[in-house]
Amino acid sequence: MAAGTGRKSAAGEDSRVIRTRADVGRTALDVLVTEGSDALTHARVAELAGYSKTTLYSHWPTRFDLLKIALDAIGELPHQEPTGDLRADLIGELTSFRQAVVDLHIDRVLSAMAQWASVDEMAGIRDALNTEAQRPIRAMLETAFDGARLEAAISMLAGVVACPSLMFGTVPDDEVIAAAVDIVLDSGQTAGKTKRARRDSNP
Amino acid sequence: MAAGTGRKSAAGEDSRVIRTRADVGRTALDVLVTEGSDALTHARVAELAGYSKTTLYSHWPTRFDLLKIALDAIGELPHQEPTGDLRADLIGELTSFRQAVVDLHIDRVLSAMAQWASVDEMAGIRDALNTEAQRPIRAMLETAFDGARLEAAISMLAGVVACPSLMFGTVPDDEVIAAAVDIVLDSGQTAGKTKRARRDSNP
Repeated sequence: MAAGTGRKSAAGEDSRVIRTRADVGRTALDVLVTEGSDALTHARVAELAGYSKTTLYSHWPTRFDLLKIALDAIGELPHQEPTGDLRADLIGELTSFRQAVVDLHIDRVLSAMAQWASVDEMAGIRDALNTEAQRPIRAMLETAFDGARLEAAISMLAGVVACPSLMFGTVPDDEVIAAAVDIVLDSGQTAGKTKRARRDSNP
Repeated sequence: MAAGTGRKSAAGEDSRVIRTRADVGRTALDVLVTEGSDALTHARVAELAGYSKTTLYSHWPTRFDLLKIALDAIGELPHQEPTGDLRADLIGELTSFRQAVVDLHIDRVLSAMAQWASVDEMAGIRDALNTEAQRPIRAMLETAFDGARLEAAISMLAGVVACPSLMFGTVPDDEVIAAAVDIVLDSGQTAGKTKRARRDSNP
């Protein structure tokens, strides 16, 4: 996929490091989701990314470093561009998430994070990654919800895609995604309930 | 926890096998969720359950057999007894599920199932286990929903508990569980939408 990094040049250093990081991150993520976390070794990533093991060890000394750069590569996934139509935007975002679940085998990514959960640094990485993943949907739902209803709605919309994947290895069809968004929005349009939620969190 | 199984007696055979299975299943599950799937070996389970390795190998020849009996032990968890008040029953069931998530480290169980997903038999076991886990909540929601809305509502309520656990290592508080149930029930009480869902699935 990419050439080695034998030459040194002050001018090209930054862009080359950035390219190496992107190549290695994507390759490490690919190994993680297609071969599992046991296969995530310097030798395997070096072989597939077309870099030397020496280069990999110099930038990412441990297997945990390889896991971190693999997880970093997830953050580069595109989100749906919001249009201002809340229903369409939520459906678009969940459809993007569904695609990421299929492309990334998100159950294996969550599995790898759970396997490494005993490493202290992992908790912070997992939180940061998932907070970032939820950011667009949180921003959209904040226009209609707050307090406990906001937290519930975020988990519920994440769950409509993530739960079938994690529990049954399937993803929801378009109709189920639209139904989930309608359930949340019907509730948000129940004025009394929304007001009650606002009063609870903004006394 | 239990004595060895050196003696043979035709009369006592069934109850002894049942007891051995229960002991070993609970111990294997305990090893799985506290020490991870790598630790799930005949030696470790024999040591903790108080049975000989020979006994374990004779009943469960492979490590995959140990994983299966560990997952079987999950099925013995109690569900909330339904009262007929849909809102209270849903909240009760999700509260039971939250307790199971905490007690079982459900993220590690799902992780172990994902790790073994390449074993053909695992898919069937995972589906059966999760179908059984969802059965009470499906039965409750079937009184108010059908079609795509039913499938969405089931994943959404599972998700309000499972997603925070899998994504952040936390569980929702009582207020968030109640808010999730209210979001679903407010939507179910929107007559036009419920009728539309019924018409779609029962033309």
